Amino acid sequence: MEKKHIRVMIAGPNGRMGQEAVKMVLADPQLELVAGIVSPARKDVQGEGTLSGIPLFTSIEEASETVKPDVLVDFTNPHVILEHAISAIRLGVRPVIGTTGLSPDEIEMLDKQCREKGLGAIIAPNFAIGAILMMKFAQEAAKYMPHVEIIELHHDQKLDAPSGTSIKTAELIAESRKELKQGHPDEKEVIDGARGGYYNGFRIHSVRLPGMVAHQEVLFGHVGQTLSIRHDSLNRESFMPGVNLAIKKAMDLDHLVYGLENVLD
Amino acid sequence: MEKKHIRVMIAGPNGRMGQEAVKMVLADPQLELVAGIVSPARKDVQGEGTLSGIPLFTSIEEASETVKPDVLVDFTNPHVILEHAISAIRLGVRPVIGTTGLSPDEIEMLDKQCREKGLGAIIAPNFAIGAILMMKFAQEAAKYMPHVEIIELHHDQKLDAPSGTSIKTAELIAESRKELKQGHPDEKEVIDGARGGYYNGFRIHSVRLPGMVAHQEVLFGHVGQTLSIRHDSLNRESFMPGVNLAIKKAMDLDHLVYGLENVLD
Amino acid sequence: MEKKHIRVMIAGPNGRMGQEAVKMVLADPQLELVAGIVSPARKDVQGEGTLSGIPLFTSIEEASETVKPDVLVDFTNPHVILEHAISAIRLGVRPVIGTTGLSPDEIEMLDKQCREKGLGAIIAPNFAIGAILMMKFAQEAAKYMPHVEIIELHHDQKLDAPSGTSIKTAELIAESRKELKQGHPDEKEVIDGARGGYYNGFRIHSVRLPGMVAHQEVLFGHVGQTLSIRHDSLNRESFMPGVNLAIKKAMDLDHLVYGLENVLD
Amino acid sequence: MEKKHIRVMIAGPNGRMGQEAVKMVLADPQLELVAGIVSPARKDVQGEGTLSGIPLFTSIEEASETVKPDVLVDFTNPHVILEHAISAIRLGVRPVIGTTGLSPDEIEMLDKQCREKGLGAIIAPNFAIGAILMMKFAQEAAKYMPHVEIIELHHDQKLDAPSGTSIKTAELIAESRKELKQGHPDEKEVIDGARGGYYNGFRIHSVRLPGMVAHQEVLFGHVGQTLSIRHDSLNRESFMPGVNLAIKKAMDLDHLVYGLENVLD
Repeated sequence: MEKKHIRVMIAGPNGRMGQEAVKMVLADPQLELVAGIVSPARKDVQGEGTLSGIPLFTSIEEASETVKPDVLVDFTNPHVILEHAISAIRLGVRPVIGTTGLSPDEIEMLDKQCREKGLGAIIAPNFAIGAILMMKFAQEAAKYMPHVEIIELHHDQKLDAPSGTSIKTAELIAESRKELKQGHPDEKEVIDGARGGYYNGFRIHSVRLPGMVAHQEVLFGHVGQTLSIRHDSLNRESFMPGVNLAIKKAMDLDHLVYGLENVLD
Repeated sequence: MEKKHIRVMIAGPNGRMGQEAVKMVLADPQLELVAGIVSPARKDVQGEGTLSGIPLFTSIEEASETVKPDVLVDFTNPHVILEHAISAIRLGVRPVIGTTGLSPDEIEMLDKQCREKGLGAIIAPNFAIGAILMMKFAQEAAKYMPHVEIIELHHDQKLDAPSGTSIKTAELIAESRKELKQGHPDEKEVIDGARGGYYNGFRIHSVRLPGMVAHQEVLFGHVGQTLSIRHDSLNRESFMPGVNLAIKKAMDLDHLVYGLENVLD
Repeated sequence: MEKKHIRVMIAGPNGRMGQEAVKMVLADPQLELVAGIVSPARKDVQGEGTLSGIPLFTSIEEASETVKPDVLVDFTNPHVILEHAISAIRLGVRPVIGTTGLSPDEIEMLDKQCREKGLGAIIAPNFAIGAILMMKFAQEAAKYMPHVEIIELHHDQKLDAPSGTSIKTAELIAESRKELKQGHPDEKEVIDGARGGYYNGFRIHSVRLPGMVAHQEVLFGHVGQTLSIRHDSLNRESFMPGVNLAIKKAMDLDHLVYGLENVLD
Repeated sequence: MEKKHIRVMIAGPNGRMGQEAVKMVLADPQLELVAGIVSPARKDVQGEGTLSGIPLFTSIEEASETVKPDVLVDFTNPHVILEHAISAIRLGVRPVIGTTGLSPDEIEMLDKQCREKGLGAIIAPNFAIGAILMMKFAQEAAKYMPHVEIIELHHDQKLDAPSGTSIKTAELIAESRKELKQGHPDEKEVIDGARGGYYNGFRIHSVRLPGMVAHQEVLFGHVGQTLSIRHDSLNRESFMPGVNLAIKKAMDLDHLVYGLENVLD
C-alpha cells in the first residue's frame, strides 16, 4: 500500500520563513501543499511563483473545511499564532509552530485542547536540527566532562551578547553537572572581561564579526583531552529539516510537544 | 555514613598505562591502591616512587587472598589479561580491562563466569571518555543528519590509515542511517584519492602531520547548516577518567559489559 | 583638498556579480557609479532598482565618451571581457577584470597596451581577499613548516575534487619548499584513498557536504606544534572588498597586474 | 666542499629547555654540540645520557677557549643570561637567547657590543615558529580585513588572562589598522564580560580548560567571508625548530636581532 501523503497548510506563505516552508513542502513527495493562509488585508493576493495554483484563504476555518489539511505550519507572529492554533485544533488540524512568544499558560492550554482531541502538535523555539543536537549532546557530555566553556559567534549587527541559544545551552549544561567553579582560584584578568561571561561556574564568550552568520562551539576539557561540539548555521533554510520532521512526528502524537529535542528518538 | 572506599589492584603498575592508573587511583580519595601485580621475573622489584609502600605480588591469587581487592585494573597484554581475569572473577574481584585483543568467545566466557558469580566486569578497547562520547553522538546525529564525513588527524609516524577509531565510528554511523551514496553522482577526482576513503556511501580522510597526536572530527551537513563533533587527545592520561568511571560502575554491575559507551547513562 | 572620487563603469550590472558590484560601488563614498554596460539585445533595459538613474550603454566607446569613467569593472564572459578591455584601454579607462578565461598571450597583449598608455589594469581569478591572504600565508609558512596538508570543503553539488583554489594553493606551497615526501615511508591505506590526493609529497583532502559553501584549511605540522590557516566563504559578496581594493589600486598603476595578491602591500 | 658544521655550546644543558636543545642539536648533522655550561655548584656533574662525552664547563671563558664554539644557546635565567652574553660576545661567540627578562637598555648594550665585533646575536621572547608566523600573518591580514577578534585557549592552571602572546598579537594588529570600534554601537551584554576583553576596538577571549595546552586563534571577518589563523602548541619541543633557525641565522648576522620574526625572510 502506498504511504499516505500528509496534507500541509502554511500560514504566511509569503513571509520569510513561510517561503522556505513552501519550498520544503513542495520538494518532499510525502507532503502535499494544500493551502496558504494570508491576512485579510492581502485577500486579493493570488498565488504566484511557487504558490501558483495553491489555494489561498484568509481564515483557518475556511481553509480547513475546504481542503482538509492534516497539519498547519505557522511561523507568523505570536498573537496570530495563538488564534490560529486554537482554530486548527478545534478543526482537527495539527499545529507545527515556530515561536518563542507563547506563555507557559498558553502552551498548557493548547496541550489540553490537543489531548481532548487526541491530536498531535509541536511548538519549538528553534527548528535547526543541528542546533538541537548540539544542545542535547552538550547536556549529556557535561555529565562526564564537567569542565566546559561556550564560544558563540554571530554577525556584528547582533545586539545582545551572549546569544539566546548559548544561554539555553548553558542552562541545560547546568542541569546535568554539579556547580563547579572552573579555572584557577587565583586567576586574574589583566584586561577586564577577557575570561568572558560567568554562568554557573563556567564561561560564555561572544564573538561578533562581519562574515559570520550564527555559530556556536561548546568546548569540554578533561585530563589529556578535549571534546568540542559545533553548530554552524548559514540561513533560514537550516530550519526546514526540523519543520519537516515535526510535520511527520505531529501525525503520530496525541498531545502537544514543546521543543524539537523531545521528538528526536 | 561515610562512603566506602573501593580497593583497587593494578596489574603492571610499572607499565606505561599502569603508571597512569597508579597516579589516578592515588589521586581519588574514593579509591584505595591495595596491590600491584608484577611478573614473576620482576618479583624482587620493590615498590618505588609512587608505588612506595604498596605491596607487590606475582599472582592474582596471592594478592587477592592477602589484600582483598574489589577491582583489578589490567592494561597488560591479551594473553596475560585472560588468565588474570579468570583468576580474578573466581576470587570475586571485578576486572576492568583495556584491550582489543580478546576474542568474542573469550569475552563471552568471561561474561558467563561473571554472571554465575553476580560480579561486574568491564572490557573496553578505548577508555577515552571524550572519544566514546564523540562516537555515541556521531551515531545519534547520523539519524537526523545523514550526510557525514570523517576527518581523523594523527602524528606522521602512524602506519595505518584510516585509524581504528575512525573505522569504529564509521561502523556506528552506518548502523544508524540508511545507505546513502553522498556527493554529486557525476563528481570526479582530478587527483586520485582527493575524495578520501569510501565507506558505506561516505568518506574518511586521514591527515598525518608532525605536531599532531590523535584527533578526529565528524562533520555532518544538512541544508543551511553543519554540525561537527571533534575529539582531541593529548596523551595516555586521557584514558584515566574512563578507567575511574569503569572502576566505580563495575561495583554496581552483576555481569560483564563490553565498551565504555555501555556504562554511560 | 577633497579626495577625488573614482568614476566607475560596470559591465553586466544585472548579472550576479554585476549586481554585487553595483551595491559595493554605491556604498563607498569614494566611488561613483557613472555607467552600466548592457548587451545590445537588452538596449531597452532601463536602470531599475539600485540602477535607477544610472545611464546604461551598449558600447564601451559610447559610455566612455559620454561619462568619462576612470575604471571599468567587468565580470562578464571571457570573450566579451577581452573586447571590452581593449576598447577601455584605448580610451584611457582602467579595466578591473574577474575571470580565469583569458590566455597568457591575451593578458600579455593587454599589459603591453596598458604600458603604452601608462594605464593601470588588474585581472584576477579570485577577488576574495581572505582566500588571497590564505594562499600567500600558506606559501610563506611552508618555508618554515614544510610539513603540510590541505583540507578543502565545499557543497555536495561541486563536480571536481580537489578544488581549483586548493590546487593553486598547492602549487604555491610547492614553490616555496623542497620536495618532501611526508608521512611514514611504510604507511598503508586500509581503505583506498583515505590519505587523500597526492601532490608534490603532500596530501589534499576534499570534503563535500550539504550546508557547506566554500572553505579551505591549510594545516602545517612541526615538532610539538601545528599552524592552521582557514578561509570560509559564504557568498558572492565576499569578492567585493577585493574588487574595491583593485579599483583603487588600478588608479595608481601604470601597467597590468595579474592576481590580487600582487597588489597587496 | 662540505658545508661547515656550526659548533654549539648550550648553557644549562640539564634544564628543561636545555635538555630539548641538546636533543635538537644532536639530531641535526649541520650542528655539533661542543660544550655544556653548568653552574659552579654542579661542577662535578658529569655528562650523562645524551650529554655523555660532551665536555662540561663552569665558565663561558674556559669553554670558549677550550672548544671554540660558534654559538651559545642560553635559556637559563635573565641575570645569568646577561653575564653569559657579555662574555660570549667578547670572545667571538654568537648568543642565541630565549628570555623576556632583559631590559631595552641591556638589549641595546649587547647589540652595540655585537656591532663592534661584527657578530650576530638573536634574542627572542618566543621561539615557536608557528606562533611567530601566526603573529606576523595576523598583523598583515589586519590591513585588509580590519575586523578581528582573538580567542586564546590554555590549561586551567594559567593565572593571567589574556595570555602574553595574545596581547603581543593585539599590539601588532593595532599597529597595522586604524582604530576601529567594532560591533554594533548599541550592542549590550546580558551577562557581564560576554564580549571579552576590549583592546583598541576589538576583543580578546580567554578560554581555560583542562586538556588544553597553549592555543590561539585570530579570527578576521569581512563581508561574506572569514579568515582564521590558529596556532596549537603541545610542549617545549615546539620551540626547537625556532632555536635551530636562530643558530643558523646568527652565523650570517653582524648585529643583534630581537624577535625571531625579524629573521624570517
